[in-house]
Amino acid sequence: MNRIEVQIVGVTGYAGGELYRLLLGHPQVEVKSLSAKIDRAQPVSSFFPNLRGVCEQVVVPVEDSAPEGVEAVFLCTPHGVAMALAGAYLERGIKVIDFSGDHRLKDAKAFRAWYGMEHRAPERLPDAVYGLPELYRAQIQSASLLANPGCYPTSAILALAPLVRSRLIALDSVVIDSKSGVSGAGRNPNLLFHLPECGANCFAYKIATHQHTPEIEQVLGQLAGEPMQVSFVPHVLPISRGMLTTAYADLAESVEREALQRLYRDFYREEPFVRVQEGGNRVSLSTVVGSNYCDIGVFLDERLERVIVVSVIDNLIKGAAGQALQNFNLMFGLDETLGLTQPGWLI
Amino acid sequence: MNRIEVQIVGVTGYAGGELYRLLLGHPQVEVKSLSAKIDRAQPVSSFFPNLRGVCEQVVVPVEDSAPEGVEAVFLCTPHGVAMALAGAYLERGIKVIDFSGDHRLKDAKAFRAWYGMEHRAPERLPDAVYGLPELYRAQIQSASLLANPGCYPTSAILALAPLVRSRLIALDSVVIDSKSGVSGAGRNPNLLFHLPECGANCFAYKIATHQHTPEIEQVLGQLAGEPMQVSFVPHVLPISRGMLTTAYADLAESVEREALQRLYRDFYREEPFVRVQEGGNRVSLSTVVGSNYCDIGVFLDERLERVIVVSVIDNLIKGAAGQALQNFNLMFGLDETLGLTQPGWLI
Amino acid sequence: MNRIEVQIVGVTGYAGGELYRLLLGHPQVEVKSLSAKIDRAQPVSSFFPNLRGVCEQVVVPVEDSAPEGVEAVFLCTPHGVAMALAGAYLERGIKVIDFSGDHRLKDAKAFRAWYGMEHRAPERLPDAVYGLPELYRAQIQSASLLANPGCYPTSAILALAPLVRSRLIALDSVVIDSKSGVSGAGRNPNLLFHLPECGANCFAYKIATHQHTPEIEQVLGQLAGEPMQVSFVPHVLPISRGMLTTAYADLAESVEREALQRLYRDFYREEPFVRVQEGGNRVSLSTVVGSNYCDIGVFLDERLERVIVVSVIDNLIKGAAGQALQNFNLMFGLDETLGLTQPGWLI
Amino acid sequence: MNRIEVQIVGVTGYAGGELYRLLLGHPQVEVKSLSAKIDRAQPVSSFFPNLRGVCEQVVVPVEDSAPEGVEAVFLCTPHGVAMALAGAYLERGIKVIDFSGDHRLKDAKAFRAWYGMEHRAPERLPDAVYGLPELYRAQIQSASLLANPGCYPTSAILALAPLVRSRLIALDSVVIDSKSGVSGAGRNPNLLFHLPECGANCFAYKIATHQHTPEIEQVLGQLAGEPMQVSFVPHVLPISRGMLTTAYADLAESVEREALQRLYRDFYREEPFVRVQEGGNRVSLSTVVGSNYCDIGVFLDERLERVIVVSVIDNLIKGAAGQALQNFNLMFGLDETLGLTQPGWLI
Repeated sequence: MNRIEVQIVGVTGYAGGELYRLLLGHPQVEVKSLSAKIDRAQPVSSFFPNLRGVCEQVVVPVEDSAPEGVEAVFLCTPHGVAMALAGAYLERGIKVIDFSGDHRLKDAKAFRAWYGMEHRAPERLPDAVYGLPELYRAQIQSASLLANPGCYPTSAILALAPLVRSRLIALDSVVIDSKSGVSGAGRNPNLLFHLPECGANCFAYKIATHQHTPEIEQVLGQLAGEPMQVSFVPHVLPISRGMLTTAYADLAESVEREALQRLYRDFYREEPFVRVQEGGNRVSLSTVVGSNYCDIGVFLDERLERVIVVSVIDNLIKGAAGQALQNFNLMFGLDETLGLTQPGWLI
Repeated sequence: MNRIEVQIVGVTGYAGGELYRLLLGHPQVEVKSLSAKIDRAQPVSSFFPNLRGVCEQVVVPVEDSAPEGVEAVFLCTPHGVAMALAGAYLERGIKVIDFSGDHRLKDAKAFRAWYGMEHRAPERLPDAVYGLPELYRAQIQSASLLANPGCYPTSAILALAPLVRSRLIALDSVVIDSKSGVSGAGRNPNLLFHLPECGANCFAYKIATHQHTPEIEQVLGQLAGEPMQVSFVPHVLPISRGMLTTAYADLAESVEREALQRLYRDFYREEPFVRVQEGGNRVSLSTVVGSNYCDIGVFLDERLERVIVVSVIDNLIKGAAGQALQNFNLMFGLDETLGLTQPGWLI
Repeated sequence: MNRIEVQIVGVTGYAGGELYRLLLGHPQVEVKSLSAKIDRAQPVSSFFPNLRGVCEQVVVPVEDSAPEGVEAVFLCTPHGVAMALAGAYLERGIKVIDFSGDHRLKDAKAFRAWYGMEHRAPERLPDAVYGLPELYRAQIQSASLLANPGCYPTSAILALAPLVRSRLIALDSVVIDSKSGVSGAGRNPNLLFHLPECGANCFAYKIATHQHTPEIEQVLGQLAGEPMQVSFVPHVLPISRGMLTTAYADLAESVEREALQRLYRDFYREEPFVRVQEGGNRVSLSTVVGSNYCDIGVFLDERLERVIVVSVIDNLIKGAAGQALQNFNLMFGLDETLGLTQPGWLI
Repeated sequence: MNRIEVQIVGVTGYAGGELYRLLLGHPQVEVKSLSAKIDRAQPVSSFFPNLRGVCEQVVVPVEDSAPEGVEAVFLCTPHGVAMALAGAYLERGIKVIDFSGDHRLKDAKAFRAWYGMEHRAPERLPDAVYGLPELYRAQIQSASLLANPGCYPTSAILALAPLVRSRLIALDSVVIDSKSGVSGAGRNPNLLFHLPECGANCFAYKIATHQHTPEIEQVLGQLAGEPMQVSFVPHVLPISRGMLTTAYADLAESVEREALQRLYRDFYREEPFVRVQEGGNRVSLSTVVGSNYCDIGVFLDERLERVIVVSVIDNLIKGAAGQALQNFNLMFGLDETLGLTQPGWLI
């Protein structure tokens, strides 16, 4: 069978590199072209020395266009870039998977407000499909322009979706406290993430102002059938990979522990990459890091009539490259789990 | 001037050892006696090799009683031990500083419910003083039996006290999400904290069931003038020291950012160990680890009419040994900051 | 094509678990049986929660024997166990791959001296094949009893083999300084490896007395054609995985930098898992962790007429489970790289 | 008693900041002036947030000269700067303590060869005193220009000095393998030390070409009474602080374990900051980090007639700022240990 030819733009960052690593193990994809914002062509292993001797494909400067035959492009670029690049690909019939926030929000005004820049192609926003397979599988299968979700929204939405869709919680009571490894901040060196400053540190940042907030609200609002607002505070953990989200909400109606557990199990019963655990105490980062899994534990605090949900993902896999590949598989009619079945590393 | 002679019981754990390290730099204390649950006398440096050549005092088995002349004892013992030991000390006129949870809760039934054991000396609970100087300085100065606060309560109560006492928030809306280094779990090896399992991990535990919950509620309830309940979820960070707490609450009335900031600055104006920061984004663990400081940042989310507070402490210092020493200084009429003025290590 | 059925004994430790994880991705193996020193049967995911939902195979107590049809057994057991178990398997025609030190030394007296126990089956030692494919590929292909190398010897021997076989160095001048992640010490909790004690620590242990010393000397001696002795000092790094070895030796004759480099390139030209780098400065742990690769850099110090070699491996993969699988592939006539081609994780 | 007024130039780096932190606890020093290569004056706490509320002294741009009354300046500047600045201070009678390599080597040609720059004030090199108190205490007491030792040389020389001075070892057989925390590389962000790249990594660098090599050789050569050459390889550990050195040498004559131990104990008997341990297995980083101590363990490998020494220091304290302060105390006739007696942090 012919392999599907793809291009990765922005391969030299963490998400792009992780995607490339995953694609090396995908049986039906051929990575035809690698590009990045660099001055001159260089082997991919000069950016990722783990690939020395494994593959010596060349990364070219990003202005070069996609070669003939490419059927999909992964845009692993910073905010503001994909909105400029996507059009040319789509016109040539090439499917676009955008890792950035450029095509996630339906409302160009919200984009401007949270990202601090004008959207340059708002006319495309209605057609972009939000790539969270657990909620939008059917639309993804026929998407041409896919907005790959942010890492924080992936962990927060999967944690809360069953509660919101069932209207079991008070929609205005949601608090989302997330903790992320440093790779989510990208590959540019920065004093904040210089090992001596960061190696045993933890801090909150962009408190209630992070640009992933409207993305979470948009998707949960669609599930709720009405607008929603949430408190969202991201924190940095002194590790490379992994994201843990703890979400809190008041119950809107009384529920029993067993029914709550069943709600989650039923919601995710058919999902290949969501694993529902009893309570939240068994949910830990190390069980998912290295994999495309999202583990979720839900806890009923009967004393306060509140529900507490813990979710964990690998921010670079289910939070970025793995999810993009899951979406790619769906968009091309492949088995959704192709190239994604490896378990976490644990240690 | 004569030094005050003290004893440390349970010196071989992290909190006891940290207290001993701090007392080595205290100009008016002489540590007369060290004991722990061990089989035979051993030099303290056999438990803390950093002390080799610095001091070679001997640790004796715990059944030995306090020597003549001792005026204060620090009980750095697990829950259930201090309640049995405190009486004999008090009868001899020796002041007791209890690191455990044995004397923190005023309600012996709550103790049984949250600690899973019967309280053996409930008659002493009314006289025990809760050792948070920022709230109870006067009582501490005349205390004989001091209940040193838990690490989580210290970080959570200091974060929320101004909001609760001012009744600026809806008392039933409080969510407390804490992240702690591993030393808080003690010095007994355990697979959970075996480096390969824990070195890059993060997880929640005792979700809404941690025994520090009623302690937080008791103190905040006193400040509020009515009973309070809070959601409290502790998490483990893959580091040795440090605790960061993120607290969320709905505003009960509208407030401006500047007024909120002023509320905190005024509340802690005279406090030697609380540093109020602008917003919460500048608050990070590394600035307080190694010190007795608590840094607090408060953020007003006008969009949701919610307030978000971040606090950081060194769980072994302001969260245990440093706070005990601050209390000791107050109990003996010394300068409250004696032996505690060193800044954090930063890196 | 039929899959080869295998058994893993001692699957609940780090090396056994890593082997199982690797075998999940091997196209021609069926893991028929898992056992360990446990009291009652339990799902493998109760020991490795990353496997929840991935595979729910059951681990049984170790006394149960191998099921019919099993063609190979991996003994991931502590020293002293495999020597007792191997015989029964071999009699049934089942190939044995021993992860422990029981079958590595040819000299039972040396075993007693370095391991502190009597060898119970010295008559089998002559037939055991030392499983370092880069040196003993032909013998491995026909082995029934395979002694899988230690992690330190793998990194040290691969670093030094070209120098020793070529007699370019003075054989009595070798110093081997190795640094290892904590997983090499096994999965039993221990104060030394309790995160607060170990998370930012580093120390040497078993200085010049480690039981891997005679193993290194035996193999290098075979390459040299005469007995060799080396100084070997292992150190602990505050990380889970990975091993870096720095080896030093005096030149026995003058050599040019280019010729030295060529010696290494030629020696490992056909090796699928050894990557020779220029100098040693580009050799780092993170490029091999997660993979079966060994990266080696060789540096000529012309000033001192000394050669310095740096090698890195993942101690659980090329240093244990991956190497065992490479040996298994060879023993069963499969492509040597089956199930082992994934690159390192890098971050 | 009057405090001695000092200036710190280059206070914003790790060594300068650590010195400032130590001086805050020194009873007889007043830090009169802080400067650094910055554009405009800023509070020191804007560089070191741990100092917020502790001290709000201002750092000024480096071109400003030393105020009247300053008696000593600490030059915490990169290589090449102190050689230009020292003269003006010395002319004014201000004692200079240079943290950089500018005044350590007696031979300006060696400086050019190893540092890759011309020395601009070679005439001052004969008068500069090498500030290792354990070897040069008398000269330090009368020094005007003090060359504070490098971190690697401190750990290596202290490890080897007893062996070299006693001529117990073959001088041409020395191998020095050092492992250092990342703070030694300074405070400039760099991809190598970006947490995701470095957090679980280890690598060798500047193999046999590090500029600390001639410094080690110069001092050991003075002890030996003849020129010496050593192999020196530094490695990076994924931690902030701490340095462990493992040194190897062939015995020149036979010695007994007890005599070797006695040699070390006698050599360092009067030293306040060197602690000799039995063997090397009890020597670990965590016992000295946070302190000015150097722990040393010496091991006799009778099998190979080789001696192996392990030493540990805090690279920022005994390896930089603490040692500078120890030298300062000596230069000003103070108790050598003033401000330096705190034990390590251990965890």
